Amino acid sequence: MPQTPIPVAVLGATGSVGQRFISLLDNHPWFKVVALAASDRSAGKKYSQAARWILDTPMPDYAKDMVIVPADTDAVQAKIVFSALHTEIANELEPQFAKAGSAVCSNASSYRRGEDVPLLLPEINADHIHLVKAQRANNGWSGCIVTNPNCTSTGLTIALKVLDNEFGVKKVFATSLQALSGAGYPGVPSLDIMDNVIPNVGNGGEEEKVEWEPRKMLGKLNNDKIDLADIRFSVHANRVGVIDGHTICASVGLTHQTDPETAEAVLRNYVAPESARELPSSPRPVIEVRSEADRPQPRLDRLTGKGMTTVVGRLRRDPIFDLKFVVLSHNTIRGAAGASIYNAELLVSENLL
Amino acid sequence: MPQTPIPVAVLGATGSVGQRFISLLDNHPWFKVVALAASDRSAGKKYSQAARWILDTPMPDYAKDMVIVPADTDAVQAKIVFSALHTEIANELEPQFAKAGSAVCSNASSYRRGEDVPLLLPEINADHIHLVKAQRANNGWSGCIVTNPNCTSTGLTIALKVLDNEFGVKKVFATSLQALSGAGYPGVPSLDIMDNVIPNVGNGGEEEKVEWEPRKMLGKLNNDKIDLADIRFSVHANRVGVIDGHTICASVGLTHQTDPETAEAVLRNYVAPESARELPSSPRPVIEVRSEADRPQPRLDRLTGKGMTTVVGRLRRDPIFDLKFVVLSHNTIRGAAGASIYNAELLVSENLL
Amino acid sequence: MPQTPIPVAVLGATGSVGQRFISLLDNHPWFKVVALAASDRSAGKKYSQAARWILDTPMPDYAKDMVIVPADTDAVQAKIVFSALHTEIANELEPQFAKAGSAVCSNASSYRRGEDVPLLLPEINADHIHLVKAQRANNGWSGCIVTNPNCTSTGLTIALKVLDNEFGVKKVFATSLQALSGAGYPGVPSLDIMDNVIPNVGNGGEEEKVEWEPRKMLGKLNNDKIDLADIRFSVHANRVGVIDGHTICASVGLTHQTDPETAEAVLRNYVAPESARELPSSPRPVIEVRSEADRPQPRLDRLTGKGMTTVVGRLRRDPIFDLKFVVLSHNTIRGAAGASIYNAELLVSENLL
Amino acid sequence: MPQTPIPVAVLGATGSVGQRFISLLDNHPWFKVVALAASDRSAGKKYSQAARWILDTPMPDYAKDMVIVPADTDAVQAKIVFSALHTEIANELEPQFAKAGSAVCSNASSYRRGEDVPLLLPEINADHIHLVKAQRANNGWSGCIVTNPNCTSTGLTIALKVLDNEFGVKKVFATSLQALSGAGYPGVPSLDIMDNVIPNVGNGGEEEKVEWEPRKMLGKLNNDKIDLADIRFSVHANRVGVIDGHTICASVGLTHQTDPETAEAVLRNYVAPESARELPSSPRPVIEVRSEADRPQPRLDRLTGKGMTTVVGRLRRDPIFDLKFVVLSHNTIRGAAGASIYNAELLVSENLL
Repeated sequence: MPQTPIPVAVLGATGSVGQRFISLLDNHPWFKVVALAASDRSAGKKYSQAARWILDTPMPDYAKDMVIVPADTDAVQAKIVFSALHTEIANELEPQFAKAGSAVCSNASSYRRGEDVPLLLPEINADHIHLVKAQRANNGWSGCIVTNPNCTSTGLTIALKVLDNEFGVKKVFATSLQALSGAGYPGVPSLDIMDNVIPNVGNGGEEEKVEWEPRKMLGKLNNDKIDLADIRFSVHANRVGVIDGHTICASVGLTHQTDPETAEAVLRNYVAPESARELPSSPRPVIEVRSEADRPQPRLDRLTGKGMTTVVGRLRRDPIFDLKFVVLSHNTIRGAAGASIYNAELLVSENLL
Repeated sequence: MPQTPIPVAVLGATGSVGQRFISLLDNHPWFKVVALAASDRSAGKKYSQAARWILDTPMPDYAKDMVIVPADTDAVQAKIVFSALHTEIANELEPQFAKAGSAVCSNASSYRRGEDVPLLLPEINADHIHLVKAQRANNGWSGCIVTNPNCTSTGLTIALKVLDNEFGVKKVFATSLQALSGAGYPGVPSLDIMDNVIPNVGNGGEEEKVEWEPRKMLGKLNNDKIDLADIRFSVHANRVGVIDGHTICASVGLTHQTDPETAEAVLRNYVAPESARELPSSPRPVIEVRSEADRPQPRLDRLTGKGMTTVVGRLRRDPIFDLKFVVLSHNTIRGAAGASIYNAELLVSENLL
Repeated sequence: MPQTPIPVAVLGATGSVGQRFISLLDNHPWFKVVALAASDRSAGKKYSQAARWILDTPMPDYAKDMVIVPADTDAVQAKIVFSALHTEIANELEPQFAKAGSAVCSNASSYRRGEDVPLLLPEINADHIHLVKAQRANNGWSGCIVTNPNCTSTGLTIALKVLDNEFGVKKVFATSLQALSGAGYPGVPSLDIMDNVIPNVGNGGEEEKVEWEPRKMLGKLNNDKIDLADIRFSVHANRVGVIDGHTICASVGLTHQTDPETAEAVLRNYVAPESARELPSSPRPVIEVRSEADRPQPRLDRLTGKGMTTVVGRLRRDPIFDLKFVVLSHNTIRGAAGASIYNAELLVSENLL
Repeated sequence: MPQTPIPVAVLGATGSVGQRFISLLDNHPWFKVVALAASDRSAGKKYSQAARWILDTPMPDYAKDMVIVPADTDAVQAKIVFSALHTEIANELEPQFAKAGSAVCSNASSYRRGEDVPLLLPEINADHIHLVKAQRANNGWSGCIVTNPNCTSTGLTIALKVLDNEFGVKKVFATSLQALSGAGYPGVPSLDIMDNVIPNVGNGGEEEKVEWEPRKMLGKLNNDKIDLADIRFSVHANRVGVIDGHTICASVGLTHQTDPETAEAVLRNYVAPESARELPSSPRPVIEVRSEADRPQPRLDRLTGKGMTTVVGRLRRDPIFDLKFVVLSHNTIRGAAGASIYNAELLVSENLL
């Protein structure tokens, strides 16, 4: 644990992921929020006036009177910068902050595919964090960029990692039923989703992300880069009328056959790598396996382990591949703001700040 | 077209599928409803008093004052009997009606797997209707039992049939997002589905049905039985907060490769077998292919072709198999009551009554 | 009935009310749509490309290939112009069309309070239509502007008129539970209404409208103006998670006491003024009184009389005033597009075109 | 604070209110749950097997392995007994427990109207608790029955009490938009409430309760009974698609006129009677006044003050009476289980156990 609180900032503080950052950083044992940055339209206003708060927990007191600053390296000076920026803006700003010395822990997709950029879920690939050394060398930066995956990739990849360790994963069919908060605010119009589902997310882009990102996270750190895992994914992404919590139905082909009971035990017994195990945001447990026939369900299970735990259920034989199951993950906690904070904690504990 | 209206009855008339029967039979050009049967609790009451009407179209006038009779062959005498009975009751009653000379057009799952029982979607396997001859011979019945598939199998199987004709279907991954009306009334409690999805339907039974039923319908009529199609299915069934309309995400492995554009054209151009093409309930068109990136959607597309058309969209390459797409079908019209009525029309036009 | 179809146009054709106009005008016996106008952004495009269709009935064929024109009097020349424009634009454009000779049948609120502008619900105040004569004289127009009320005022005012005729209405408490389609598209974000209600509509403006508009419609035509009815209203407006159909809980103070049964009979037996009784869009019946304890309900009752009928239920004694009841009206049919079309039909049949 | 934990039991432990009791009693500083009782069907099973848990917070560990006992005075011996029983069963059982020496803190409606039974909201009428002395004398009981009001009366009465203290309340129009959890589990079928509202709760009974219960709570303790407050209520009760949190629109007639700003200040500054102020479940604050134009909203505000605070907003002039406003209260916390627990705490601190 650091001796004194580490100053952190949130970029994109007024949006839906920005709000989760602010909520999760309330009373954080290591971090102290020193700056909230947002678009020019909001800069200069008090946070409580600029943000339309949409979480069902109250706005933390510390944030209410903070005056929003512009999202640039003059206005924002913090050891750690959490980025909830839109992709196009993140493209431009995140390297500027890294150059200026901040560790950028980003939820944006901009640099996830960068060769020397960690795409991180500490409970499964904490060692990938060491890519930041190459990244600093390559760019001459004192700061760095560390990313977390797309919210739909998150829970799925965590479950797959455990299975891959034990049985080898070769092929994955995955169909998502994604929550509305994943689209930000105002996001999905109510007339589009009441009494309805939308069989497409991000105009196809979501499927592409989930077919690629897990391969990097399940890949091996090989000197200064990641060898992508040799796994094929086919993904169907859907939006459903759920506020928070992405549900994914997966069918998985394995190298070594197993049965559902064995797979269930392996998932239940998984522990995170030591470096990622006792951080403030470490999921406790990493995976919860539900034994009921109709779980996990987003409303009932999304807050398991304060929203950081991956919940798995319905492990059964797959008639074509080997295993079928359902994975649930809280998309704006484990899948977004909580993910970036967990990554930042790993940076701190590994002395990589 | 028959010279005089054919007398028909509805068994299980007060439930959600029973209500659809009553609604779809209003002003039917060939059929005249002569009896509505339900449980002993309802028998003797006027239909308008016994049924809690849940459709958003009004209860037809003809039904309001009909007095409900018990579901037995004494009380119900009709050339065609539509069955919306629960499985256990259908098990017992449907053969009694067939023996008594009625053509039972059933939405129940009881006899779908019977060797000499047609499992029918006229627009794709109208020829299977001729199984009823063997059925009559085997049982010494003057009536018969004809079944339609589970509502989730319906749209999927219709799309697969067209692809199978042209390219040969080998493997199918399918994930359903099923509507609430599929669970009947009262069915799913609101507290279970608001802000939620349930990753299980019928306690696993739904998946088993959809992994088997299409194989019979895609099979070949071989003398007096059906050779099951040699296709493997893996199904994930989910309940979502939609009133009507089942959405299915499918990935399909083919014998002969193709591209999405060709497959789309084949689906769009499909016409039903001649015998099933011009019946009162024939879907017009059989399949509608939507070209938008986010269709079909249940609220917007379920009433295509008066709820009898199968709507397909998002045809694209599958990274593991060959094709990915989305299918939508109205579960209580094409997938239930409308299906049984269409089957009855085929019986009439083929002179099999 | 006119000998030849009357050419009509729709202004604001791509929005949610515009779509209802297009849908309701499909196969209209008197009117033929000759122009669809929308914002400059859409002008020049085919309607099927410019509009994001949100109704659950398909886009009519006639509209698909019509090329959208700008909303000005050069581009749009039609005997009747239906206005689904936003208030600020309607403020400016509607008088231009009236001056150019079109009868503007408007759903906008811009001119509802104009002294010589009819605010019309033909089944209750058809005689107010004659204000257009004064309006033409006052402005030197060959065309005119005729308005229909706010969607929440609509059903309430119709029920009140019948009670007022018979018993005299003095005071009205009304609480609305309003549908999402009333906010247009994209309108209410899903994150704002899922598992929620919003106790405010139009930032207070809705309540003000419903506290005033009924007084004009319930008022008396006195030469060239309307004497507002001397009735006091207190309104609470709420948005709820319903797609279509506004529900209103009302408590009414009367001049002459009555009992719920008598009031119910009076409502049930009401017939429209003769001039408004047999028009193509006349509600049949004007009012339907439901006797069940839990009706009307929006999903089940909004399409009564093709969405033009006002549905009333739960008539009972009020412990403070005289009567309590519930009113339901389809907000985009009777309360918007259908209202303007009905008004246009009255103009035609009264030879006021 | 008691020296040693007080043993408590929950009757009706498996239902939706029972679950809230179990959840709120987890780590309670004064109380220790020693028995969970339910119907004979559940008795003998572990709680985790018998209850279908529907809260979005996990089942507390302490309850999981407790074996459910029958709801009778042999099996359940506890100083305090929380009753989440259905009315008919509560009618019979609650006096038996009171006779056997338990203080029954009941959420059932059975004895709310009893002359010597406190109907209690401690933050406004803590002094009514002293009715239990008369109750004990009248019945010869060592135990007692203390009730909390209907969940819809709760928030409304708290707000009215503050206004009544200051300005005198004479008449109240109130329209509720009530959450689904108020109907218990399974409660409202999803097909009844999706895309819908139901303008009736409890077949009229809810309105009757809310028109009477506040009069007792706003009444004055006069020796051994309560003089009902001379206030007239007219209530419209509606069910809406919200999981938790009842919203009420109220119009209030006062004895002494005031303006919204003054009323707002009075509500905001209210403090509970001293005896009820510092108990473990005391709402902090009693009332929160929101200044936004569209608050309170159930999803955003129901957990204010851990679900015990009454949230008020939209204070404005009423065109017929004096004031209009909106009140929100968590129906299963402040309006049910939390209410009974708060009452029990008052019994303890007043030495009335």
